[in-house]
Amino acid sequence: MTNDRCPNFYIALLHYPVYDKNKRVVCTAVTNLDIHDIARTARTFGIAGYYLVTPLKKQQVLVKRIISHWRSGFGAKYNPKRKDALELVSISDSLHDVCEEIRGKWGISPKTIIADAKSIKGSIDYLNAREMIKEESQPYLLLLGTGWGVTEDIIGNSDYVLAPIRGITDYYHLSVRSAAAIILDRLVGKRQGD
Amino acid sequence: MTNDRCPNFYIALLHYPVYDKNKRVVCTAVTNLDIHDIARTARTFGIAGYYLVTPLKKQQVLVKRIISHWRSGFGAKYNPKRKDALELVSISDSLHDVCEEIRGKWGISPKTIIADAKSIKGSIDYLNAREMIKEESQPYLLLLGTGWGVTEDIIGNSDYVLAPIRGITDYYHLSVRSAAAIILDRLVGKRQGD
Repeated sequence: MTNDRCPNFYIALLHYPVYDKNKRVVCTAVTNLDIHDIARTARTFGIAGYYLVTPLKKQQVLVKRIISHWRSGFGAKYNPKRKDALELVSISDSLHDVCEEIRGKWGISPKTIIADAKSIKGSIDYLNAREMIKEESQPYLLLLGTGWGVTEDIIGNSDYVLAPIRGITDYYHLSVRSAAAIILDRLVGKRQGD
Repeated sequence: MTNDRCPNFYIALLHYPVYDKNKRVVCTAVTNLDIHDIARTARTFGIAGYYLVTPLKKQQVLVKRIISHWRSGFGAKYNPKRKDALELVSISDSLHDVCEEIRGKWGISPKTIIADAKSIKGSIDYLNAREMIKEESQPYLLLLGTGWGVTEDIIGNSDYVLAPIRGITDYYHLSVRSAAAIILDRLVGKRQGD
């Protein structure tokens, strides 16, 4: 890992395929604050790129308008720090396309790490995942879900499943924005003594 | 600390007095997602209460409407988990009133811990703060700012100042929602081996 960046570590926020409340597979709407908050967190932790995944063209147009406001429109002058963060954001049709894009840059496919609120057998803990992503020659892609979580297919096909974030209660219903912040802090945040 | 709660640990989100972009002291508007995200994080980490501080009566009315929708209106049935989280939320006119309310419950005033994005001399690190709040007989109140951060007066009068969250870059512009998540995870989240 270089001094202040994780050049091999990417995030994707999946709006499809995810479950709704009744476990139907749906495509959720992109949320403005998911773009901003997770981009700011990604920038703080030196992440290489943040992909918003949605197959809906109208949603893609909306996201592009928001991003361009902050990257090159009025927002870029009003708040240059926000511009810095939103430079990391890309839009993609599918998880497959994200993996292909990263493969195009690295020559090898990224290993996917899925974060899910549920406890899943064989999950990897944070300390091990933290060590793993230090392996600079291998790109890693952290997958975050929206709605009621990504489908079992996506989980089944991922290379690693992160242990769920445990607070100190039996309540695990963090927003994806909060979960992203905690996960990145645990995986790449500076530790006392670092 | 009891098994799954921090009965002596509270949070306050200050909308006044905070700075705007030009370092004028202002009162910021309450944001719907600040209520939800931080309440969900607070519930996950077993925090005793979450105070939204604003002196503006119209803002207080708005917050009460949002909370009542999720606590006893349609939202309570639609998403009982959200109800659980929003049970923790109270509204207060001022930081002074929050401290008085906690003093009313405990017989002593809370010690205040301020989280600020800037690096301040004499700040307390996370491991020490984590140990400190285990002292169950003393209530603690974590202060979070909105806008461009709380005023120097508030910082000067707080009992402890937390070291800023460091990612691995020189960019520290997390949203208050993301900062709250990381701080609570660092202060009271379960650690491997706990």
